Amino acid sequence: MKLGTVSAEGRVLAGFADGEEFVVCAEGTDASNAVRRVVEGAIPLDDWRQAASSAQRLRIDAVRLLAPIPEPRRDIFCVGKNYHAHAAEFHSSGFDSTSKEELPQAPIIFTKATTSVVGPDAPVNGSLDPTGSVDYEGELGVVIGNRASRVSKAEAFDHVFGYVVLNDVTSRELQRRHSQWIIGKGIDTFCPMGPWIVTADEVEDVAALELSTTINGEVRQKARVADLIFDIPTLIETLSATMTLLPGDIIATGTPEGVGIGFKPPRYLAKGDRMSVSISGLGTLENTIE
Amino acid sequence: MKLGTVSAEGRVLAGFADGEEFVVCAEGTDASNAVRRVVEGAIPLDDWRQAASSAQRLRIDAVRLLAPIPEPRRDIFCVGKNYHAHAAEFHSSGFDSTSKEELPQAPIIFTKATTSVVGPDAPVNGSLDPTGSVDYEGELGVVIGNRASRVSKAEAFDHVFGYVVLNDVTSRELQRRHSQWIIGKGIDTFCPMGPWIVTADEVEDVAALELSTTINGEVRQKARVADLIFDIPTLIETLSATMTLLPGDIIATGTPEGVGIGFKPPRYLAKGDRMSVSISGLGTLENTIE
Repeated sequence: MKLGTVSAEGRVLAGFADGEEFVVCAEGTDASNAVRRVVEGAIPLDDWRQAASSAQRLRIDAVRLLAPIPEPRRDIFCVGKNYHAHAAEFHSSGFDSTSKEELPQAPIIFTKATTSVVGPDAPVNGSLDPTGSVDYEGELGVVIGNRASRVSKAEAFDHVFGYVVLNDVTSRELQRRHSQWIIGKGIDTFCPMGPWIVTADEVEDVAALELSTTINGEVRQKARVADLIFDIPTLIETLSATMTLLPGDIIATGTPEGVGIGFKPPRYLAKGDRMSVSISGLGTLENTIE
Repeated sequence: MKLGTVSAEGRVLAGFADGEEFVVCAEGTDASNAVRRVVEGAIPLDDWRQAASSAQRLRIDAVRLLAPIPEPRRDIFCVGKNYHAHAAEFHSSGFDSTSKEELPQAPIIFTKATTSVVGPDAPVNGSLDPTGSVDYEGELGVVIGNRASRVSKAEAFDHVFGYVVLNDVTSRELQRRHSQWIIGKGIDTFCPMGPWIVTADEVEDVAALELSTTINGEVRQKARVADLIFDIPTLIETLSATMTLLPGDIIATGTPEGVGIGFKPPRYLAKGDRMSVSISGLGTLENTIE
């Protein structure tokens, strides 16, 4: 299933996509938390499935999609330098203030603030970066479905609820200047996410998924999830070894080669630039710099 | 007022300290969120103040204190290398994998996971660090009272609800190995906090507060908040310049000189070690390594 949260005629609605239609399963004050509550198991997914025949349906092209979980329970876990070619381009860009090695020996984990999350087509407020060094990072997001503490690689996928497309928008100068990354990466509106959280049962082999990012239609990133340096089981094992992962937690798994600072000189985003991140089977996430 | 959350006879209660007594202002399922809701303004502090005369009172030494906000709304913002002498000791320790300079040119901001938060006297699970390099960091925590976006230094204190004692317990080897710090610092139970959130009106001059940390009774850290490299207004201005701060957000302002890796060889914490962090006017936070 493809779970999502939308806004239509001033109301927030939660539900799922069925072809061209959005099936409304929750509305009212709790709707903005409904997808999160499904992920947590507080609302059984079967209730939504069964309600489908009698539920209200809206054309998807007639609603405004929000982030599937508009207000995450806590900060987004993110992984740095997790594709070989990107690790090399970032390392040689001069913006990597944090490590001497090109390839990380262990996963590099940081967070994006909850307030950075926005949905498809929401403007990304590039003017919040006073240094004018805004860059894109198309990524696969993993959504945790049940509490994960001291989980082995072999059991890791038992804790995955689903997947989502994500754009880890970054101010490169702030990332470098503050050395730890949340200031450069946790900026308001700098974490577009969506259009859907796609349940794990719809993804036969996550490693086979293909990611591509375009800027104003020009292909910049193209990679397979199989190319991750630290794969999803390794990330879940590493994170959960010391930190209990909670239902609804989101792990942004890292970005492949082709970001703006991979070019010489860097190609930063400017007002009006349209970013588009697609992952096969998960959908396309488009946002414009404002 | 000194706001807190306690456990007594299996019940969670929220309220405030009045001398040797704890005044019970909230109980039941919502009690663990009640202090956070007071901080957010959803429960008027005056309601609690006025309820005091008729409220149930318990002896503080007969209850178990939890973290004042047992489940923070999102991750704890933390500041690295924010006292001069500590910046020097950390830099020369060999554990600073992230910057070339001894003194930071801009605040270094990272986060601790919500699941790292525990209260006074709660055990800190040192065995979660497989590298055996657990270290203490006594710190002043600032609690944000109202939404802060693009706030100037001059207005920063308008957004402060109060203050709390905090211990930024850290695995030094994991901090170094993963280069971004949440893995080494976000470990379950590694963020003791309490005993109280003390409202800002009770703190005449926060810069005059004195912090001291002892390990098994031996004084290790001693500093004044005035010694911060980046003071509280600067931190709030810097964070809120790009990230909207929310009511209930907590900023751990950094630790002074005297941590375990400041010694040669490093003096790591071992099972049974008792950490005690005191800040004048705010109270004492004690935890034992388990």
